Amino acid sequence: MAAIKDNLSKPAVVLLSGGLDSATAAAIARDEGFVLHALSVDYGQRHRFELSAARRVAESLGVKQHMVLAVGLGQLGGSALTAPIDVPKDRRADQLAEDIPITYVPARNTVLLSLALAYAETIDAADIFLGVNAIDYSGYPDCRPEFLDAFAAVANLGTRAGVEGRLKFTIHAPLVHWTKAEIIRRGVALGVDYGLTHSCYDPSPTGVACGRCDACQLRLRGFAEAGLRDPVGYQGGRD
Amino acid sequence: MAAIKDNLSKPAVVLLSGGLDSATAAAIARDEGFVLHALSVDYGQRHRFELSAARRVAESLGVKQHMVLAVGLGQLGGSALTAPIDVPKDRRADQLAEDIPITYVPARNTVLLSLALAYAETIDAADIFLGVNAIDYSGYPDCRPEFLDAFAAVANLGTRAGVEGRLKFTIHAPLVHWTKAEIIRRGVALGVDYGLTHSCYDPSPTGVACGRCDACQLRLRGFAEAGLRDPVGYQGGRD
Repeated sequence: MAAIKDNLSKPAVVLLSGGLDSATAAAIARDEGFVLHALSVDYGQRHRFELSAARRVAESLGVKQHMVLAVGLGQLGGSALTAPIDVPKDRRADQLAEDIPITYVPARNTVLLSLALAYAETIDAADIFLGVNAIDYSGYPDCRPEFLDAFAAVANLGTRAGVEGRLKFTIHAPLVHWTKAEIIRRGVALGVDYGLTHSCYDPSPTGVACGRCDACQLRLRGFAEAGLRDPVGYQGGRD
Repeated sequence: MAAIKDNLSKPAVVLLSGGLDSATAAAIARDEGFVLHALSVDYGQRHRFELSAARRVAESLGVKQHMVLAVGLGQLGGSALTAPIDVPKDRRADQLAEDIPITYVPARNTVLLSLALAYAETIDAADIFLGVNAIDYSGYPDCRPEFLDAFAAVANLGTRAGVEGRLKFTIHAPLVHWTKAEIIRRGVALGVDYGLTHSCYDPSPTGVACGRCDACQLRLRGFAEAGLRDPVGYQGGRD
């Protein structure tokens, strides 16, 4: 018998990128009893396969609604994910942990959370989930707990529902202190099909992961540490 | 001889809606010596004339760059400005000051500021100007100083430039404590051509202001209190 869930039938907005982390965060929100409203943002990312992965993941999770919003961050440039700048490959493990790489998209999570907040207020959802992670991450500043706390303050001060006290917004980042291996183990336990997800920053024209960018390296290391095989294929058959 | 400006040649991002307030805020930023990078956001607002007004205002101010980003907030609905809901007309002065009206767009200023932040970080600008006002305003929660302070914290925690200490982001809202009449007087002194601006939430198909929505009423009252004539025309010749 399933445990009784405190959040049964409460709506939550889940930022769904199509990657491994956000799929896991969404599965956790569902497991906690929330009704999922997924939000994916087409911000001009080069790795467009993310968005079709997001659609597959949303469907597999049985979300109530999947909203895809476009915003032209690519016009601004400044990142290897949105501009014609080479994606770094084969960086060492200590580099992955320390630098803020060129794949950083200026203010990306602030933009994503602001759109999630607009969506949440519209559907009366107080809870926003995202899959950011401050351990096995790429050194991005907008993945840290202090940033998320600051954004929650903005959410409660800058919305009608927050100011009127009708909703108290909470930013849930259930993976924030987990290793990639812990994330994968939890997702597998919750039935996440990681074969539907896409992490690579620089896939082949047909969407096959490179296995060498930061995102592929972190993912592959996570599966290895979890003692599991990544169901996604890689260029050259690497896995 | 012009006064020497501390900010001479420093870049600033100015959110330019096409309305009276943001045109004034931009003129103040220019007067303080900043090089202006204007950002207008097409968020699906019904009053599309705002965006062409923003282009005219940007040109008249001699901005270095005018970026127009589209984001589909209209998909979310929930506001008379983005969805097919009637814009309130002829509300009394006490109503204008107290309620949060249906023209409130969920989390709009959080979304606008997050895009301004992305733009600012890309061009190494620490300063963001916007024309929000907490006196003669429409009761929107995201026009208050405490909201702006909270957003500045997000900006400095959630960006590479903020975390690395390269930029300390400041959100400038020079009009926040001014009456509409004070805003207009200051703008006129700075040479703002208010004939280029557009404020009406519900203009005619050819862009003529209605004179009856909250935005028109606040604007007309401001010009009257400043003892000036609004150079913009109104339906039925009202001014």
